[in-house]
Amino acid sequence: MKSIELKTPYLIFTGNETHDGYAKTGFGIVEWRRSLCKGQMSLKGGTVDLGLPPMTIKEAVDAKVGSLIIGTAAIGGGIPDTWLEPLEEALLAGIDIVGGVHTRLNSIPRFKKAAEKSGARLVDIRIPPEKLPVASGEKRLGKRLLTVGTDCGLGKKYTALALERDMKSAGMNVDFRASGQTGIMIAGKGIPIDAVVTDFISGAAELLSPSNEPNHWDVIEGQGGIFHPGYGSVSMGLLVGSQPDAFVVCHEVGRNQIMGWPNFNTPTIKEVIDRTVQIGSLTNKDIRCVGVSVNTSSLNSKEREHYLNKLSKEIGLPCVDPLKNGTQKIIDYLNIQFNNS
Amino acid sequence: MKSIELKTPYLIFTGNETHDGYAKTGFGIVEWRRSLCKGQMSLKGGTVDLGLPPMTIKEAVDAKVGSLIIGTAAIGGGIPDTWLEPLEEALLAGIDIVGGVHTRLNSIPRFKKAAEKSGARLVDIRIPPEKLPVASGEKRLGKRLLTVGTDCGLGKKYTALALERDMKSAGMNVDFRASGQTGIMIAGKGIPIDAVVTDFISGAAELLSPSNEPNHWDVIEGQGGIFHPGYGSVSMGLLVGSQPDAFVVCHEVGRNQIMGWPNFNTPTIKEVIDRTVQIGSLTNKDIRCVGVSVNTSSLNSKEREHYLNKLSKEIGLPCVDPLKNGTQKIIDYLNIQFNNS
Repeated sequence: MKSIELKTPYLIFTGNETHDGYAKTGFGIVEWRRSLCKGQMSLKGGTVDLGLPPMTIKEAVDAKVGSLIIGTAAIGGGIPDTWLEPLEEALLAGIDIVGGVHTRLNSIPRFKKAAEKSGARLVDIRIPPEKLPVASGEKRLGKRLLTVGTDCGLGKKYTALALERDMKSAGMNVDFRASGQTGIMIAGKGIPIDAVVTDFISGAAELLSPSNEPNHWDVIEGQGGIFHPGYGSVSMGLLVGSQPDAFVVCHEVGRNQIMGWPNFNTPTIKEVIDRTVQIGSLTNKDIRCVGVSVNTSSLNSKEREHYLNKLSKEIGLPCVDPLKNGTQKIIDYLNIQFNNS
Repeated sequence: MKSIELKTPYLIFTGNETHDGYAKTGFGIVEWRRSLCKGQMSLKGGTVDLGLPPMTIKEAVDAKVGSLIIGTAAIGGGIPDTWLEPLEEALLAGIDIVGGVHTRLNSIPRFKKAAEKSGARLVDIRIPPEKLPVASGEKRLGKRLLTVGTDCGLGKKYTALALERDMKSAGMNVDFRASGQTGIMIAGKGIPIDAVVTDFISGAAELLSPSNEPNHWDVIEGQGGIFHPGYGSVSMGLLVGSQPDAFVVCHEVGRNQIMGWPNFNTPTIKEVIDRTVQIGSLTNKDIRCVGVSVNTSSLNSKEREHYLNKLSKEIGLPCVDPLKNGTQKIIDYLNIQFNNS
């Protein structure tokens, strides 16, 4: 197995959760892959509503659900006792359990036993596939776009998914490639790049976007930030292995410091572009930036327009807030650059 | 445990090995830490002679040996059947077994049982400590020098050890810090940086060279190469976490392609200096190159002198072959740069 592959469709499980904020994973899957979601399941006291039909395990079996996805992060990242019985029931019914929680699913004896009995899988989305190769650096067919960022947690996954959606709408041949937990649940497959042993990270990135048709685009979810004091080597490994032809820089208005690293300023967008081109040209001499994706939620619509226009003039590239404007401007520029239109 | 720590002194074990080339680890330990080595032990047919007193397990116990070091790489990287009995005997006598072989030591039931009985440890030098932190990026006291390279396997460990030796001779306050397997056996402690999960690699590098006295130098063994298509992120993670004040570039005359990656040319020394300064200045604004260490084994003495002089003029830094010239020129330059003399 060269990447994690999930069985679809999904039943999204939110346990006893009462805060929507802790169920971001569940909401993300519904937002981007509503068609994969057959239903939602919560327990006594749980109030999170993802807008899916409520479903019991029995109903999930009838609906041919492949995986129960743990769509919420319990406090402490463990599996509460109240979850044991319903999840065991799902396993015994042959439904895979998929989670990114801190406690390893197969360290719970009841789960392990039930899974062995039915053949269902316990899929820990934070554990990368085994026997990943060292990167070869060899060119693969097809085209690749990577989202990169001035920091973590400011829209690299969202931007990649928005690009995939809008490129699909424009009739392009495109796939989102997931490098993180929620992304993998949304895509149904992928590799948790930051959990890979460093010797193999670029090799894992090569597997994540394999050779494809010449006009096919992989839109690869970025990780970390190339100037990040903790996670910079994750970003470098993903960049070198992805061999992107194009990249989009993600930024958030007002994010002046690296989140959680107050002694480190965020780099400028220009610095991220230059460094990404420098490092990325090791495996793709033609790498270029094709736009900037900005989270402008702190601005009103007039401020937003002014900010994006000014930035676009400064760096000579299309700049959008994908939540407000979509990504069409970037796709138009991409098509001109790569003669795809 | 924040790094692997070995019990000293050592008994070096070379099994049935007949080729010195496969016992490089053993020879390296004897070369750099003769004082830690009490004896050598080979089995029937083994002809490798490290120049240490031959020693039985019983004699090793009397000599208060702490660890039996597997100083040879068997074909296939496993543990041959003929090794089982003598290594079990050592374990039962309370001596740790230390190895970097492919087969996990504690996957061998006889070893596991013997270790449990006596309390001796099975130390797999390729397995990093657990619960490594994400890098904080915070400055630590003391000074640091990192060896970097135009490629893998061209003298980064050797150069770091030669620098430690020569700095010690000059009366400086210095420690070699090991980031790879053989280095860890030589130093008696360290972290196998390339085996760390990428999220934690810079955090592991921070642990490797902790805060120290202001005039103390850590000389850190480099890994990979910042332009390496497979291992570049190992080099970046080590660089960012090490926060080196100074670095020495290692190169080999005639190495024009990345070893094992024939489609990738080695970068120039100038390119490695510039990129290392760029990336390293994220966590240390004052990072600077203090010299170049060249393996000139393919040149005669006249060619060597010409090569090193020419290179030194080109880049304006001391250039040495540490095997032929020692590293004094680099140390002199270091002391001028850091007002240590």
